[in-house]
Amino acid sequence: MRSEGTVLPRFGASPDDKFRGKHILSVKQFDRSDIDRVLRVAHEMRTVVDVVGSIDLLKGCVLANLFYEPSTRTSSSFIAAMQRLGGDVVAINEVRYSSVAKGETLEDTVRTLEAYADVMVLRHHEEGAAARAASVMRKPLINAGDGAGEHPTQALLDLFTMREEVGRLEGIEIALVGDLKYGRTVHSLARLAHYYDITLRLVSPPSLAMPASVLADMDALGTKYTVHESLDDVLGSLDILYMTRVQKERFANIADYEAVKGSYVITPKTMSGMRANTALLHPFPRVDEIDTAVDNDPRAAYFREIACGMVVRMALLAMVLGRA
Amino acid sequence: MRSEGTVLPRFGASPDDKFRGKHILSVKQFDRSDIDRVLRVAHEMRTVVDVVGSIDLLKGCVLANLFYEPSTRTSSSFIAAMQRLGGDVVAINEVRYSSVAKGETLEDTVRTLEAYADVMVLRHHEEGAAARAASVMRKPLINAGDGAGEHPTQALLDLFTMREEVGRLEGIEIALVGDLKYGRTVHSLARLAHYYDITLRLVSPPSLAMPASVLADMDALGTKYTVHESLDDVLGSLDILYMTRVQKERFANIADYEAVKGSYVITPKTMSGMRANTALLHPFPRVDEIDTAVDNDPRAAYFREIACGMVVRMALLAMVLGRA
Amino acid sequence: MRSEGTVLPRFGASPDDKFRGKHILSVKQFDRSDIDRVLRVAHEMRTVVDVVGSIDLLKGCVLANLFYEPSTRTSSSFIAAMQRLGGDVVAINEVRYSSVAKGETLEDTVRTLEAYADVMVLRHHEEGAAARAASVMRKPLINAGDGAGEHPTQALLDLFTMREEVGRLEGIEIALVGDLKYGRTVHSLARLAHYYDITLRLVSPPSLAMPASVLADMDALGTKYTVHESLDDVLGSLDILYMTRVQKERFANIADYEAVKGSYVITPKTMSGMRANTALLHPFPRVDEIDTAVDNDPRAAYFREIACGMVVRMALLAMVLGRA
Repeated sequence: MRSEGTVLPRFGASPDDKFRGKHILSVKQFDRSDIDRVLRVAHEMRTVVDVVGSIDLLKGCVLANLFYEPSTRTSSSFIAAMQRLGGDVVAINEVRYSSVAKGETLEDTVRTLEAYADVMVLRHHEEGAAARAASVMRKPLINAGDGAGEHPTQALLDLFTMREEVGRLEGIEIALVGDLKYGRTVHSLARLAHYYDITLRLVSPPSLAMPASVLADMDALGTKYTVHESLDDVLGSLDILYMTRVQKERFANIADYEAVKGSYVITPKTMSGMRANTALLHPFPRVDEIDTAVDNDPRAAYFREIACGMVVRMALLAMVLGRA
Repeated sequence: MRSEGTVLPRFGASPDDKFRGKHILSVKQFDRSDIDRVLRVAHEMRTVVDVVGSIDLLKGCVLANLFYEPSTRTSSSFIAAMQRLGGDVVAINEVRYSSVAKGETLEDTVRTLEAYADVMVLRHHEEGAAARAASVMRKPLINAGDGAGEHPTQALLDLFTMREEVGRLEGIEIALVGDLKYGRTVHSLARLAHYYDITLRLVSPPSLAMPASVLADMDALGTKYTVHESLDDVLGSLDILYMTRVQKERFANIADYEAVKGSYVITPKTMSGMRANTALLHPFPRVDEIDTAVDNDPRAAYFREIACGMVVRMALLAMVLGRA
Repeated sequence: MRSEGTVLPRFGASPDDKFRGKHILSVKQFDRSDIDRVLRVAHEMRTVVDVVGSIDLLKGCVLANLFYEPSTRTSSSFIAAMQRLGGDVVAINEVRYSSVAKGETLEDTVRTLEAYADVMVLRHHEEGAAARAASVMRKPLINAGDGAGEHPTQALLDLFTMREEVGRLEGIEIALVGDLKYGRTVHSLARLAHYYDITLRLVSPPSLAMPASVLADMDALGTKYTVHESLDDVLGSLDILYMTRVQKERFANIADYEAVKGSYVITPKTMSGMRANTALLHPFPRVDEIDTAVDNDPRAAYFREIACGMVVRMALLAMVLGRA
């Protein structure tokens, strides 16, 4: 709503306007320099949070945080991110119980809510919902997951966490472990790995292997990777072990599930086979694929990963609002 | 809670204390000069939002936003209004699931929540709930709709939008179209029209005509109006076309509904029969009474109307808290 | 998240760091000087609220307000408390509907949410949940009730209200009336009374008498008390009459309930038997144990008690964050 003439405070060493007013819909819209910039701003935001907790960069701005399906983790992360930038949040979590949900199109709902807000975050259960919403909006939209579609902030926060944990992304070795077939985030990571010359170890049961379409993209991009069934094959040489959940409901028969589930559980014994500086990540929630006995191991980085999620979202909110 | 001695910042060219500490329960409590004042303050608030987004006028104040029935649109509008004034909001949307709802009276609930807040907004499903709540409260209450009762901020925001769109209210011509029998807001508008010498065109099927009691009030007030079944009768001379939803559930038999529903749908063809500066309003949500192909017509003012709702609520919040 | 080197504003005449970073899990962790300090800071907070409404003491801090079971009263009280200290709140009320609730442990949920926040408030339906949560957290946790377990802020706000109403706690006479068997708060009050040489009148039907274990503790602590079935025995000499709800569902057969329920209802007639300066308290919600005809009696202190709840929570939030 602000006029173009207003002089606003800017954040960071080298703010530019590339993302000002832009939608964040897909990782596909980010080239290497874009990702570098997000990670650099996120690192600065992390310093702000560590040292002073908050900053008044988005004071007076309002975020409409519109969640059609509940996701306490992602929703809370965006809310806290906006608040730590000094902004306010209209949190709409109850869409399914609301009259908005009855007989009103997504397009009408988002045009209504953008009338109150400066920026919107949308979580929706239908693939493509974010693009549909963005097509009618004038304010920037950040996709917080649309069904089987994209969840770009998750991929960015994973990369950010990896860089913070290892110290760099260039040339590192990452194992993606568990369900590589259905996981949106591992597909995104697989397609981004080539930017940093990352070597991927794809570890899964054959029934949950990385889809051919993703492998084809990786081949086309020149991504280095190997395929494994056993985690033991790769455990000793990793910079990052990225666990995912093997979901029972993905299996047609229970015997197939029982056969593989034990192979992909991280225990203190697994940790003993890892290097001293391998970081263990997991996009959460976990069920039993990481034993809680591992939580206090300094290499267990999944709670730090959650904090990284907030600062990456701070970076994106500040960037689309033209303040970083 | 503030003592009378505190000097507070005030807003606007000519603040007065007429509404300070008052409840906003019904449009009937507003005379012409009151409405003029609300519209003037709302216009100033609109400028604030357009130029700087927010203002710290209600910093340190807390709004209890108490919604017994969900209404994302109205609820979000009040929340964003309070936030853009620098205030905070305790949003209570889940009343039906709460222990508050179990065996506690409305009176006890509002006296509880006013202990935490400086001002309250109430949406309730029972007619008269707002007056009941206000009768036990010491802090100002704003009625955000109580069942078949009043929804005064909707009527005020409609008038505000009309004035912003046309440039004046005095002597304009407005068609109220669709369901004039059950719509709270069209009844309110009909009773306010005489203040501004507005000419009303009442367009509806006979089964959904303006109730005799409202027509009697209009006659007593000297309101100018005509009654029509066909929108074509009036389309070419309007300043404002105010659409409402013809709700299927209002009809005793479906054939009656099917007979009329098509007559009250706005399409690009309808728009071609309208003047170049007629504004099309709708209190939303719409179902199919306005074709989305009309949305990008500059005369389609219903999304601007939603933004107007927020600034009118900013004006009312500031006024009842004695800051405008 | 703040580094130890940051200089923060402090509140009150004599801030100390005893509660900085501490969990508030049980009244048992408070000795007399701790309670005195909470009440003193709460009194200062009350002055802030009365005079200026809010203060920017916790500006930039984020509270995660995590309610597994709905409790609008307690939840709203903490939210408003944080806001009146200038802080922000991530309010999580829908845990049961959320993916967080599905297959994720309480421990994982609280470690996730503390990554976004500076302090957490937890309400949970299971006894011991607060201690379990605190055991994995690095940020301070305030227990807002865990099933049949503790609800320490309720006991503190009751003591605070009593001191504000009477002017002192030392040597006062309090009747605890109604259900003394199941009420968490009356058990807490009974165990704290000795600190202030309070005389307790325990008034209940035999079937809802104070449990032997609590009486044993009171005896061990040298607490002065008498036991009564009839409120009339004690009505004329009280400083505080603390009513509780006799819940129908506590009785094995309905006849037992019908036999006692009438004896413990406060009416204007009851009030006429009380001293002019006895304060009537009730932890709310009430059903019919206090006649609404009593509400406007100046001795009816239960709505003031609710406001006291907010300022006690302001005190605790400021203390655990090291600002008071």
